[in-house]
Amino acid sequence: MQNEKTYTVEVDKKSDETGVIRSAEILTIGTEILLGDLVDTNSAYLGGRLAALGVSIYRHTTVGDNAERITASLQEATSRADLVITTGGLGPTSDDLTNQCLGEATGREMVEYPEARRHVDEMFRRFGREPTPSNYKQALFPEGSKLIPNPVGTAMGAMLELDGALVATFPGVPGEMRRMFEDTLEPLIRERSEGAIVSRTLWFTGMGESALAEQVQDLLDASDPTVAPLAGQGKVRLRITTRANTPEEAEKKITPVADEILSRLGDYYFGEDDETLESALGKLLTERGATLALAESCTGGLLAKRLTDGAGASAYFVEGLVTYSNESKEHLLGVPNDLLVEHGAVSEPVAGAMAEGVRKVAGTDYGLSVTGVAGPDGGSEEKPVGLVFVGVSDEEGTEVERLDLSAWRRSREAIRERSANRAFDLLRHRILGQDEA
Amino acid sequence: MQNEKTYTVEVDKKSDETGVIRSAEILTIGTEILLGDLVDTNSAYLGGRLAALGVSIYRHTTVGDNAERITASLQEATSRADLVITTGGLGPTSDDLTNQCLGEATGREMVEYPEARRHVDEMFRRFGREPTPSNYKQALFPEGSKLIPNPVGTAMGAMLELDGALVATFPGVPGEMRRMFEDTLEPLIRERSEGAIVSRTLWFTGMGESALAEQVQDLLDASDPTVAPLAGQGKVRLRITTRANTPEEAEKKITPVADEILSRLGDYYFGEDDETLESALGKLLTERGATLALAESCTGGLLAKRLTDGAGASAYFVEGLVTYSNESKEHLLGVPNDLLVEHGAVSEPVAGAMAEGVRKVAGTDYGLSVTGVAGPDGGSEEKPVGLVFVGVSDEEGTEVERLDLSAWRRSREAIRERSANRAFDLLRHRILGQDEA
Repeated sequence: MQNEKTYTVEVDKKSDETGVIRSAEILTIGTEILLGDLVDTNSAYLGGRLAALGVSIYRHTTVGDNAERITASLQEATSRADLVITTGGLGPTSDDLTNQCLGEATGREMVEYPEARRHVDEMFRRFGREPTPSNYKQALFPEGSKLIPNPVGTAMGAMLELDGALVATFPGVPGEMRRMFEDTLEPLIRERSEGAIVSRTLWFTGMGESALAEQVQDLLDASDPTVAPLAGQGKVRLRITTRANTPEEAEKKITPVADEILSRLGDYYFGEDDETLESALGKLLTERGATLALAESCTGGLLAKRLTDGAGASAYFVEGLVTYSNESKEHLLGVPNDLLVEHGAVSEPVAGAMAEGVRKVAGTDYGLSVTGVAGPDGGSEEKPVGLVFVGVSDEEGTEVERLDLSAWRRSREAIRERSANRAFDLLRHRILGQDEA
Repeated sequence: MQNEKTYTVEVDKKSDETGVIRSAEILTIGTEILLGDLVDTNSAYLGGRLAALGVSIYRHTTVGDNAERITASLQEATSRADLVITTGGLGPTSDDLTNQCLGEATGREMVEYPEARRHVDEMFRRFGREPTPSNYKQALFPEGSKLIPNPVGTAMGAMLELDGALVATFPGVPGEMRRMFEDTLEPLIRERSEGAIVSRTLWFTGMGESALAEQVQDLLDASDPTVAPLAGQGKVRLRITTRANTPEEAEKKITPVADEILSRLGDYYFGEDDETLESALGKLLTERGATLALAESCTGGLLAKRLTDGAGASAYFVEGLVTYSNESKEHLLGVPNDLLVEHGAVSEPVAGAMAEGVRKVAGTDYGLSVTGVAGPDGGSEEKPVGLVFVGVSDEEGTEVERLDLSAWRRSREAIRERSANRAFDLLRHRILGQDEA
């Protein structure tokens, strides 16, 4: 049932050539991550950047704020990989141990770096605060470290060789880590790596993962490029991946596969790579100079938030009304009281009246509405948790789609995200249909 | 500078007593996680649940969809821990390899389980679709496995002993994994574990991490309970942790420490454990029977979305207006055109007019507004990226706070989240101040 060819056989050992960075591991340090107080987003970010640089990455490891364990995992990781990137444990408090453990692992003394001490002073001046004695802990590094500047926070990082591998330490705060990685380590890796793993992701919606996979099973079985499916929240993506020495070579291998996939599944396709349903919709609206207003009930602002997550929504997004009460639906959208009394707020007629109402109030080309029971409470036999209506309105008319998301009745988040996805896709198809007409 | 006492010295090896579950590792399987296409939230969830059950968790590991590597990491993890939980790799496609690798690691044949085949059929019937041949791959498990029911998806999990450890496989879809873990594995662990690690988290805002840590340095240096700080997006938390045999014993150890912390830092405290600024604010409003309306510009619905992430906001949240255009600010909120022309949309007077306007339009007790430059583009010398105004209005008057978030000018998300946090906190303090008056 499974296919041997899809295994990528890769060599999990360090490069013999000194200085070449071919493999990396990511080491996340922090009890708060281990115990689940915080979700580790840094590893995903670094995994993506390293893959794009052609560095093979085989393992992410998370350990707590424990000196022995941090030291041991640094030694394990450097025995396997050319590059070990750590995040976390660079703060000013006593459970921040990363640089000190790097000192122990390399047998180096901890010394104060005057440039780092000045940096702490300067950052505190910038924020208008006084450093406390513990803040100067962030100026201590293993002797011989090359420091990694941090333009946005007090914690500088360190680079040091251990067991023939390069170790680079970064703070756990995502904004600081990313900036430091991009400014300092990424250019260094680019010089010292070979070739690149190149991927293109194609996004689909409106079809389940296995049904979609069946349509391209022959491509999923191929080994170069590889094609891998992944599903979530009503969307499925196919990731096409190859290794190449130049971007042109990668394009030549990936494009025919992408074209073949689109010839079979084009009706369900909405974009590639970082595209989201909201960004795809935003592009369609912007290209056409069309405008949009939103009327949200159970999604409570989620559609508006997603449309404005990226810059650029002001080109088409005029306003969003989160009408969380029946009164709001009446006075802001002009939904007739009769309709609310007769059918209830979660109903096809109300969803239609909301979409039409917001379009007229805002004077936009399109109105989009969502009303439903997101749960976990508030469901009834007639209107169970997961019952959602999505409405779209333009001058040609108003249509409403009924969604049964009761399978996700235990997750308010899943119901809201899937409702938003269906709403964005409904409008997207309406616009595309009008283009064809 | 760092303090020996804060190291938790723990034994990283398996229990000698057969059947006792004292230690666990989490193994995440999926190339999409390794390459950063997807952020792993499952490990955080499982880490939190295991900690609450008193199971020590020392390591999270992520590997790709590679049979050799999955098998090896299963063997490594079972050599160290009493329990190994895997997530991912249970799907119907050819790169889903987890159960098969568990078969290889344990030397068991893969056999079809009739109950799992029936389950696939039933789930497809429920979703109104036809299974394809590849879907029945999800009925194959290593011989001798005990299956883990999945009430919400097609992928059942398996439990099997390997090297004296219990391995349990779960799908990667968070909603399915959580449901299955809570229904099946959690009760089993509860029976077989000893004591519990108990934590209480206290949340603060309005003070930086190191300044706050200085106030409680003596407590951070103590070893039982331990107190650990963590900061992010304008909030700082202190986590108090101990190990105890009964909830009462844990309370007796934690409560005096929590009380001591609050006696020093109470002004900055807003809640404990799962409390967020929005839920703390929601409680205050609900308790007082007060109502709230929002007027958002740069946050684009984020405040409304956060208020409605949990159920219960309908008790106080009447409506939220995402006025993304100047026209919207005029026609929906009654912001005078003069004000917009003279001061611009991002200005103190406009923030005030928005808060007051939405309060009057919605007829609520409070109005809360945000207008600013979230970036990354759109800044000017006079109004740089990160300049944000937050307004709060009630019948006693309207106040506006100017935020300088330019330090986060490279992250639109950080600016929006911090603006929302400040807005919620501003209103929270206004309400608390009125209680005192």
